[in-house]
Amino acid sequence: MKIVYGERDSILSSMAELREQATAVEKTAAEAVEAIVADVKARGDEAVREYTKRFDGVELESFRVGAEAVAQAVASVEADFLEALEAAKRNIVSYHEKQKRQGFMDGDGTGIIRGQLIRPLETVGVYVPGGTAAYPSSVLMNVLPAKIAGVGRIVMVTPPGKDGVNPYILAAAQIAGVDEIYSIGGAQAVAALAYGTASLPRVDKIVGPGNMYVALAKRAVFGAVNIDMIAGPSEIVVIADETGNPAYIAADLLSQAEHDVNASAIFITTSKELAEQVRAEVEQQLQALPRAEIAGASIEKNGLIVVVNSLEEAFDVSNEIAPEHLELHIPDPVMALGQIKHAGSIFLGPYAPEPLGDYFAGPNHVLPTSGTARFFSPLSVDDFVKKSSFLSYTREALEQVKNQITILAEKEGLSAHARAITIRFDK
Amino acid sequence: MKIVYGERDSILSSMAELREQATAVEKTAAEAVEAIVADVKARGDEAVREYTKRFDGVELESFRVGAEAVAQAVASVEADFLEALEAAKRNIVSYHEKQKRQGFMDGDGTGIIRGQLIRPLETVGVYVPGGTAAYPSSVLMNVLPAKIAGVGRIVMVTPPGKDGVNPYILAAAQIAGVDEIYSIGGAQAVAALAYGTASLPRVDKIVGPGNMYVALAKRAVFGAVNIDMIAGPSEIVVIADETGNPAYIAADLLSQAEHDVNASAIFITTSKELAEQVRAEVEQQLQALPRAEIAGASIEKNGLIVVVNSLEEAFDVSNEIAPEHLELHIPDPVMALGQIKHAGSIFLGPYAPEPLGDYFAGPNHVLPTSGTARFFSPLSVDDFVKKSSFLSYTREALEQVKNQITILAEKEGLSAHARAITIRFDK
Repeated sequence: MKIVYGERDSILSSMAELREQATAVEKTAAEAVEAIVADVKARGDEAVREYTKRFDGVELESFRVGAEAVAQAVASVEADFLEALEAAKRNIVSYHEKQKRQGFMDGDGTGIIRGQLIRPLETVGVYVPGGTAAYPSSVLMNVLPAKIAGVGRIVMVTPPGKDGVNPYILAAAQIAGVDEIYSIGGAQAVAALAYGTASLPRVDKIVGPGNMYVALAKRAVFGAVNIDMIAGPSEIVVIADETGNPAYIAADLLSQAEHDVNASAIFITTSKELAEQVRAEVEQQLQALPRAEIAGASIEKNGLIVVVNSLEEAFDVSNEIAPEHLELHIPDPVMALGQIKHAGSIFLGPYAPEPLGDYFAGPNHVLPTSGTARFFSPLSVDDFVKKSSFLSYTREALEQVKNQITILAEKEGLSAHARAITIRFDK
Repeated sequence: MKIVYGERDSILSSMAELREQATAVEKTAAEAVEAIVADVKARGDEAVREYTKRFDGVELESFRVGAEAVAQAVASVEADFLEALEAAKRNIVSYHEKQKRQGFMDGDGTGIIRGQLIRPLETVGVYVPGGTAAYPSSVLMNVLPAKIAGVGRIVMVTPPGKDGVNPYILAAAQIAGVDEIYSIGGAQAVAALAYGTASLPRVDKIVGPGNMYVALAKRAVFGAVNIDMIAGPSEIVVIADETGNPAYIAADLLSQAEHDVNASAIFITTSKELAEQVRAEVEQQLQALPRAEIAGASIEKNGLIVVVNSLEEAFDVSNEIAPEHLELHIPDPVMALGQIKHAGSIFLGPYAPEPLGDYFAGPNHVLPTSGTARFFSPLSVDDFVKKSSFLSYTREALEQVKNQITILAEKEGLSAHARAITIRFDK
């Protein structure tokens, strides 16, 4: 793991380069995805069935996973796993319930009513990857905020395996309260959710992680439905002063690095000594990891230790990176919140390691990646509602402002707009 | 204007067809836009200057519009126009201030802190069309929610005309509180906002209306920055029972129709007699309109009167359409809010015509179009903030749950995640 000393610009340009590489999309993949989406839109189930055979090697009679299959899966899963999922669910629910909002209605006694309704989406689709990236925790993180928002119909899609759907995923879907499950995946599943097929009625919004093809398909259907954010490579920034514990910090960096070779783990510290200790710990801990190959490649490619002169400099570099995850191993980390401008999720102190948030504590683990914390937010209840404004004026209230409205309309050359006001006061 | 009788499915399929046509994007346009975006990203100001010369026919020394030019513009504009804009601003501000939200922090006495910060975006770009579609009201509607959110830097871009920038647009920018103005437009302006150039630092989010090239450019840069929604053709649905006033209703339908030939104006009523009267009024009022050609073509192509058997049927059809604007000309329209599922903005009663909302009353006129009110919302203060979650546990609090976290992490095959928890409790 490379250590650099306060070269702010070179650190930031190497981050930018990394992100550029990782988000570069092959044009051919985008074209292939667009063709699949158009085909599913046109031919529905038949097309979904063909692509499922071609890409997943599975011939499906029906896409729908029945209640019996779900019940069997739940029965096959270890009791302590189910208990742990239930405990995580309680925390996720209690956190996200605080995000619920009310609309408003305002009347000032002058004959005017103005308001805003906030209502749940009717129906949402959640994409859940299969294979080695099958994460039951993601099912909870994507489904529970939708439940709390009041979404009426939550549909899960997940690619079929040779032996059916992963039972841990099905158990998580049951615990989270998914309404319908379909064993389809890839761009064809995203297209089916967006446009609907005979066997899968369309949804209003598609959320959930996926590979490049899923991400491209979500981008292709954006507008026909809503989608969650565009995810890029994931990252952690850990900031520590000389009080930081090198073993904890190294373990947290590695927990990010084991996700994927494109993940980045960045450690920023005011202590040269701690920098050296963390480097040594990373090397040592890496050897004992089952996913040492991935984590090692990620650390090699994107790992970086930055030694700065002050915590202010550390916050400054972190704000430029706008990390998905930020850990603060410093005394009084809550005070530092005033200096953190951009970060998806912030972990305060030595006993809030990232995996606590990934699995359990309650805040969402679907977070803005690759610097998009500047403008995107963690997945929340807000992502599963839509708003409508409303307005009422009395005749008298409208008459008082009619001239001002017509001045504005006429200046924009929209006479029919002006006429819609004045006609109400014609003799 | 065609009148149809309660053929729900045929009404909906003709709406769907209309939308499909209008949102179909020429592939060549998308490719041209992507090339412009890539070129501006690579070559910055030089590329912007070349495209401005090519597409706008203007050679610019500097893109930035100076304070003097703005002051001159404001001085040249009629006082009653400025007063009307100021009055609209007061209403827009008082409405949007009710959308401001607080974050939260929750501590339950067990050593756990969880919270959510809600903070303004640092910098936002607002696209304002030039030429005949130059709308000062759009400047207020896009800029004021950003100001209320607390955005630090608001940048406006608008295409240069032969005689500089429209003075009404500049006056609106001044009243709204825009920080920087650049006279550039098209895909090149969107790319400059997204990636930054030497003379225009990048922004975090781009909002505002534009033609097809602007919309395609926004889609192309989505992810590098955030954008507002993807806008399609605009529409109004008016619902009335036999108490509806045909002259008012016809005027309101025409105010939508004059925007653009792709706009649609749909009238749904329980009264066959009112249907006939509205049709006659539309024909008659159309003749007196300066924009009769556009409004007439829109009514001809996309105008529709639907006669239904009950208000419930009317609400049902409207919910399927999910209109951008919905007017309710019925007794006790507030009660009907309980039956409206999807609509961008709802206008209650005979004295809340759409132009009242477009210009003046306070709710935003940037609304979800083409049925996207199912899942998109009116532009609001929420669009100019981002959230961060935060989390702190004591050692004791973490120890209590460490086994449950490691069970979940191990089941997902992420041992380094488990290790980041257990290392904190190693002897």
